[in-house]
Amino acid sequence: MITPKEKHPSSIVRIIPLGGLEEIGRNMTLIEYNNEVIIIDAGLQFPDENTPGIDFIIPNISYLTNHPEKKVLALFITHAHYDHIGAIPYLIAQLNYPPIYATPLAKAIILKRQEDFPYLKKLTINTFNIDKNETIFKGAFKIQPFHLNHNIPETAGFAITTPQGLIMYATDYKFDFQPIADKPANLNQIARLAGKDTELLMSDSTNVEMPGHSISESAIMENLDKIFAQAEGRIILATFSSLISRLQQAITLSEKYNRKVVVEGFSMKTNLNIAHKLGYLKTQKGTIINWKEAERINPKNLTVLCTGAQGESEATLMKIVNREHRYLTIKKNDSVIFSSSIVPGNELAVQSLIDSLNKQGANVYHYKILDIHSSGHAYQEDLKMMINLVKPRFFMPIHGHFSKLKEHCRLAESVGVPSANIVLATNGQIVEMAQNNVTVTQKFVPANYIMVDGLGVGDVQEIVLRDRQTLAQDGIFIIIATIDKKTGLLYQEPEVISRGFVYMKESQELIGETKKKIREIIQRLAKDGETADSYTRNILREEIGASLLKKTQRRPMVLPIIIKV
Amino acid sequence: MITPKEKHPSSIVRIIPLGGLEEIGRNMTLIEYNNEVIIIDAGLQFPDENTPGIDFIIPNISYLTNHPEKKVLALFITHAHYDHIGAIPYLIAQLNYPPIYATPLAKAIILKRQEDFPYLKKLTINTFNIDKNETIFKGAFKIQPFHLNHNIPETAGFAITTPQGLIMYATDYKFDFQPIADKPANLNQIARLAGKDTELLMSDSTNVEMPGHSISESAIMENLDKIFAQAEGRIILATFSSLISRLQQAITLSEKYNRKVVVEGFSMKTNLNIAHKLGYLKTQKGTIINWKEAERINPKNLTVLCTGAQGESEATLMKIVNREHRYLTIKKNDSVIFSSSIVPGNELAVQSLIDSLNKQGANVYHYKILDIHSSGHAYQEDLKMMINLVKPRFFMPIHGHFSKLKEHCRLAESVGVPSANIVLATNGQIVEMAQNNVTVTQKFVPANYIMVDGLGVGDVQEIVLRDRQTLAQDGIFIIIATIDKKTGLLYQEPEVISRGFVYMKESQELIGETKKKIREIIQRLAKDGETADSYTRNILREEIGASLLKKTQRRPMVLPIIIKV
Repeated sequence: MITPKEKHPSSIVRIIPLGGLEEIGRNMTLIEYNNEVIIIDAGLQFPDENTPGIDFIIPNISYLTNHPEKKVLALFITHAHYDHIGAIPYLIAQLNYPPIYATPLAKAIILKRQEDFPYLKKLTINTFNIDKNETIFKGAFKIQPFHLNHNIPETAGFAITTPQGLIMYATDYKFDFQPIADKPANLNQIARLAGKDTELLMSDSTNVEMPGHSISESAIMENLDKIFAQAEGRIILATFSSLISRLQQAITLSEKYNRKVVVEGFSMKTNLNIAHKLGYLKTQKGTIINWKEAERINPKNLTVLCTGAQGESEATLMKIVNREHRYLTIKKNDSVIFSSSIVPGNELAVQSLIDSLNKQGANVYHYKILDIHSSGHAYQEDLKMMINLVKPRFFMPIHGHFSKLKEHCRLAESVGVPSANIVLATNGQIVEMAQNNVTVTQKFVPANYIMVDGLGVGDVQEIVLRDRQTLAQDGIFIIIATIDKKTGLLYQEPEVISRGFVYMKESQELIGETKKKIREIIQRLAKDGETADSYTRNILREEIGASLLKKTQRRPMVLPIIIKV
Repeated sequence: MITPKEKHPSSIVRIIPLGGLEEIGRNMTLIEYNNEVIIIDAGLQFPDENTPGIDFIIPNISYLTNHPEKKVLALFITHAHYDHIGAIPYLIAQLNYPPIYATPLAKAIILKRQEDFPYLKKLTINTFNIDKNETIFKGAFKIQPFHLNHNIPETAGFAITTPQGLIMYATDYKFDFQPIADKPANLNQIARLAGKDTELLMSDSTNVEMPGHSISESAIMENLDKIFAQAEGRIILATFSSLISRLQQAITLSEKYNRKVVVEGFSMKTNLNIAHKLGYLKTQKGTIINWKEAERINPKNLTVLCTGAQGESEATLMKIVNREHRYLTIKKNDSVIFSSSIVPGNELAVQSLIDSLNKQGANVYHYKILDIHSSGHAYQEDLKMMINLVKPRFFMPIHGHFSKLKEHCRLAESVGVPSANIVLATNGQIVEMAQNNVTVTQKFVPANYIMVDGLGVGDVQEIVLRDRQTLAQDGIFIIIATIDKKTGLLYQEPEVISRGFVYMKESQELIGETKKKIREIIQRLAKDGETADSYTRNILREEIGASLLKKTQRRPMVLPIIIKV
């Protein structure tokens, strides 16, 4: 039985969520005491329609970099998903390479990714075993990992004993009493770590809107079995590359139904190899084959595992549909299984992919028509179970959009947490633990988006994104006016170029009229003696913009270029 | 009892879907016999991520305009939603203003919209009553409307007797035995019109993936009642502007709980007025008030009905959240009800809107946490009921993405339609009825997108859209090289301008290096005597593009402009 240290009345423990409280992604939380900081997770977030062209978004750690007196003791990793580990290569140098604590699986996946960043120093990664009741001491903190379920094995929660009481930290979890390629979450262990005196439970809000219990991987297995039992041609199963349990299911069923398995997609192959090496993936000898072997096999004896279930343009499934794949095209009788949920924002791309597969003659199965995917996140009754197991004095929802956190507050209240003891914070907002109280302050640290685009970290800013959005709407209209320095009049005919606005070849009349208007403007300005470039540019932008709007009802970005000769 | 005319063995009836079979939107179907054509619906489709900046997409009617021998006898309208009537102003002149047949409600909404197109001729709109067993004869066709339910009143199906047999046409329907502001679909009428000899049933596939029966509007009413009963502040209910039944529910409940009602949003006000005038909307005198009156009323006695439940940037709800609304800001205790489904593609915008409302202190209710919206489309058991009512020889799924049509084929087969009698077609594909058979041919008419953008119809083409997508990804990088005609050398320093690529103020080094590279390229070309503008442009585009990619991992559109002086 673990009990917290005696509480220090004078010093405050600060909990600072840098990301993950207003989105799915870029999870990162600081826990601070007397300038000593431990960090939980360092994840990235994928871009959406408001951040066009961005590769991804990472947490803002300027609170740490601006305060050199804060010492980062360690980075603890809950599990190996990119929204929890993906920002490590971008942040670890700025954090001065603190030691990382992770499970063996997470360690292997972090190190594999690190190979893409050869200019970084070697990481120090210590491993812990979530089933062995280990304890890690860091400064004033004691950290004890515990076993949760998720859709990747080795997902940890942390019991964090601080000078102001015990925090039970559970992000990204569900309870599965019959998981695949994993052991069940250890309820007994969780309750014992929580003990009778948990000050604060921080718990996953992703699926707070889903009633009931989440579905066990074993139930998914039964439905997949039905598809395998009746499939007459090849089976192509697309899922997340990190979904080890689903890959295991597909392999087990392939062996049962006398099918060989080809794995397509770099990330999926990598994860499969790592999981296999660590003993998470059981395959019989000869089950996994390569394309050369696969081509000699009867379609009804072949399973293809691949990426692309989100409709990603670069992934295997899209290449197959676009007939750009080296080996594979869809044939009649192929069964294509989308064994994943749809990440919000990808709905249209996935619908279009499913339609194309259907048109090419495949039988398509997806989670809307059959339970062939189980979310990695707890449903309402599971969330209540966690509160009941831990019996915390204070409750703080994490992981999810703000409205989900708020809904999670209601749920906690409905099972008896007093509303005064419920802590609803946003990214960057400082939560303080002191004197037997947990409070949300009105103090904020920077938590705005840091965007990674190509090799640039943080150099794409609001103004660049706004430009991209404008360009995406109605394109750009460029005016080139070459002006005689002496007279202020046009030295030669103005040129105009448009991209994404109108098809120039078919808009000669509009172009002609616009050039005429440009000539008139330049003449007028010359006559008035207004020859400053910036003034000319402004007038051209305004008047030509208004004229194009009137003629086309479109608002391209108008970009006048003045050349003085 | 209606029986089809004796079948003519020689002539073929053609069914040509111009839209609606691979999307939700731009619904339009032609039925043709001996060059005589009747049209069902003329709808528009809203743009998505693949058609940035477009206003909307309309059906391609070039099959008709290219064949002047085809005579359009009439346009029949099933109901007043824009995906069924929205293309009328763009197509009706090209179709030579055929007479339109519609219900009184659809007529009123079509005419109201027509006011935005003053340059068009007056429409001829004849009305029919869906409850009165009316019959319309057009050429070789006999058309009999019947009463269906949907989420707008006066939704018609059509029994269309052709020389090759009876077609039962049912797009956009559900069965609701206790609807609001409507009568139940008339099962008896449908079965009698179908008779014993229906050749073909064409039926709505939108919700074919939903098990069970759709939810009655009366059940929605009960859940809304609970929210109204407990709301302590204002109620702000956002829904589709055409959802008359929901507006009626909100008004009835407001009257029950002693609230006045303000209506916000031009389209909602318009539809409400039309529905009220036609007797579809019952309000007590004095329930509907204006803002001036509303400002004097206790918040707990006020309901606001508004648009914007899809997160549309211009609609009322978004203006309220952005504090741009003239009268309304969110206060603590406000209840905001999203009484609508989310149109695919809008998920992220709606999530962000809900989060903002929550942060501003509102209690937010949406369909994921409570049944406060009912889809307008039949679920699986309802679809089976339709097949059972009509007992068709042939079955053709319509209205929905291709994968849903295919799923609907499976459903039809599961209730006894022989697979040989199931007709799965795509947009533009000609379906033929002849000699007691309905077959999908391999003949296609044009059905590609016609895009409306601002005042242009059809002038935005693939190349313009591709440019917009490129610009949205990594922006544009413009090179201006002013070159001396005689020497081929730079007349002055090259200029570069970027938009949506990097923030220029913070990228001086990159800009400097790139200018240097431009100078080198121009010198090299001058030395080699390569002075053709097009050649210089190509070299600049390639070499500078490659250099920027290497330095930034981004691929902006590179646009070199050569000025010769």
